[in-house]
Amino acid sequence: MSKRFQVVGIGNALVDVLSHCDDDFLAENGIGKGVMQLIDMERAVALYDRIGPAQEVSGGSAANTIAGAAHLGGRVAYVGKVSDDQLGAIFAHDLRAQGAVYETPPAPSGNGAETGRCLVLVTPDGERSLNTYLGSSEHLSPDDIDEAMMAEAEWIFLEGYRFDGPDSHEAFARAIAATRAAGGRVALTLSDPFCIERHHHAFADMIRNDVDLLFANRAEIMAMYETDDFEAARRAAAAEVEIVACTDSENGAYIMAAGQEVHVPAIPTRVVDATGAGDLFAGAFLWGLTHGFDMETCGRMANVAASEVISHIGARPEADLRALFREHGLI
Amino acid sequence: MSKRFQVVGIGNALVDVLSHCDDDFLAENGIGKGVMQLIDMERAVALYDRIGPAQEVSGGSAANTIAGAAHLGGRVAYVGKVSDDQLGAIFAHDLRAQGAVYETPPAPSGNGAETGRCLVLVTPDGERSLNTYLGSSEHLSPDDIDEAMMAEAEWIFLEGYRFDGPDSHEAFARAIAATRAAGGRVALTLSDPFCIERHHHAFADMIRNDVDLLFANRAEIMAMYETDDFEAARRAAAAEVEIVACTDSENGAYIMAAGQEVHVPAIPTRVVDATGAGDLFAGAFLWGLTHGFDMETCGRMANVAASEVISHIGARPEADLRALFREHGLI
Repeated sequence: MSKRFQVVGIGNALVDVLSHCDDDFLAENGIGKGVMQLIDMERAVALYDRIGPAQEVSGGSAANTIAGAAHLGGRVAYVGKVSDDQLGAIFAHDLRAQGAVYETPPAPSGNGAETGRCLVLVTPDGERSLNTYLGSSEHLSPDDIDEAMMAEAEWIFLEGYRFDGPDSHEAFARAIAATRAAGGRVALTLSDPFCIERHHHAFADMIRNDVDLLFANRAEIMAMYETDDFEAARRAAAAEVEIVACTDSENGAYIMAAGQEVHVPAIPTRVVDATGAGDLFAGAFLWGLTHGFDMETCGRMANVAASEVISHIGARPEADLRALFREHGLI
Repeated sequence: MSKRFQVVGIGNALVDVLSHCDDDFLAENGIGKGVMQLIDMERAVALYDRIGPAQEVSGGSAANTIAGAAHLGGRVAYVGKVSDDQLGAIFAHDLRAQGAVYETPPAPSGNGAETGRCLVLVTPDGERSLNTYLGSSEHLSPDDIDEAMMAEAEWIFLEGYRFDGPDSHEAFARAIAATRAAGGRVALTLSDPFCIERHHHAFADMIRNDVDLLFANRAEIMAMYETDDFEAARRAAAAEVEIVACTDSENGAYIMAAGQEVHVPAIPTRVVDATGAGDLFAGAFLWGLTHGFDMETCGRMANVAASEVISHIGARPEADLRALFREHGLI
């Protein structure tokens, strides 16, 4: 297969606003630790007033995945909505500068919705707690799905978070149909346990009918299959989806395909900022997959990429991931 | 003396756009290594298109100094102009969140000038090359100088870079007059050798007539006194100014006051990003000075703060500077 794009990601286009705080601050401000909470503009402003000095870096889960695959040299594109404002320009620049194609037209500024942002609060243990103001990212519409682009994709990569939003199911349906019609395949990341609760039925339908590759972490896959038994959840997913890539933090990852399960140990790393671990895992996995590597190697590449991104602030790679793959004997 | 503010800084309010590049990129794009070049909006856009993924952090030389002093617990304020846009909101947030008072009214957005920014290109040796689009920071006017605030300042801290701009001399003159009339004192940083070339006469006048404390690095003080002899330049400065604090990179700093010169060795540090070294040197020095420490201790504090800020990306402190001062036996 030699399509123009190896992976096209679709998700919430967000700029991360990264700041440090302690656990007390999370408790005092009703912030759930380690998960993503949606907040409105009013709450975003109030919370921003309370946090310390911050730094701004482009984020968004699927955008991080695509940036990771682009960093590795993959032919990739991204679809997600920003506004025609300064943060939108930053988001677009960073993705294009990484080598990804990004052509989604920005929403006109001044209509109330600004470019979405995610207040990322990093506690001393490196855990990140996400407070997302979706802004214009919520308004990605079916019209933003360029069917010709989808037809040029070996894989589309759908971000579970993107189920939050009025036209999101339709947009995803359109992307899936156009991709499938041209022989492409569909990957989905479950994103977050609370997101799964909000959209359980839609997720279940999509997984059963359309998903060829499922990314999830331990909490997400158990939420999806409504069980406390991690292994049972993995088996249930593997029965429905051709490839399941399931992360389990410092315990590594499980890759299930063709009736087999491979466990890939994590790379021991001091966690500075866990933001983007799952995103980069997916980005490297997809890069490996679309470059003909076997499941175990893809899983090992994914772990290396995840370990790099949690070793520093920000959710996109800073070190040369290909050099790290070479060091680990993967390429 | 128990004024409301220990230090009030005045300078160019900028957001830093930090990206990595190699020396070839600097050469190909006509960027002078290690110095600051002023660029217009067109050049800013063209250069931004060419650089890799970036991160945004609040910057501005005097603003970094004030942020450093605020981080240490100093009572400080800042005067500088942003626009009423997203980058302006980021700049204001980060300074206030650090504990500084910042009340300069933003310029209305949509009049052409956006909040100023500085494209900071960091080469593998940690050196930073600055490309500054002044934007609205250039339009700080005498009207933005709140004379009541100046009267409440033990020290005002003037950024040499701020000499670039139509009304800047007048704004500085007004600030100096209001400060002096209330018994306050005046510190100046020379900022950059090319900036000195552009405004040599104005700098010389101000130093001779109004400056009580002069910050400069080796290149700047030699440019200011038009000599290749570093020691002669320091002597010439000390003859005109009560306190001279002169940095010399890894060779440490020289503090001259009351006819004496003290050399303070630098803290050996792996340079990740030199941005803000001089700014934090000044911030810690001013904090020490306004808290009754002797010249040598102020210089040692300044070196510790500078070494902290060059050990990571970004021009504002990340580690607890007071804890570092304790480790070094300074407080």
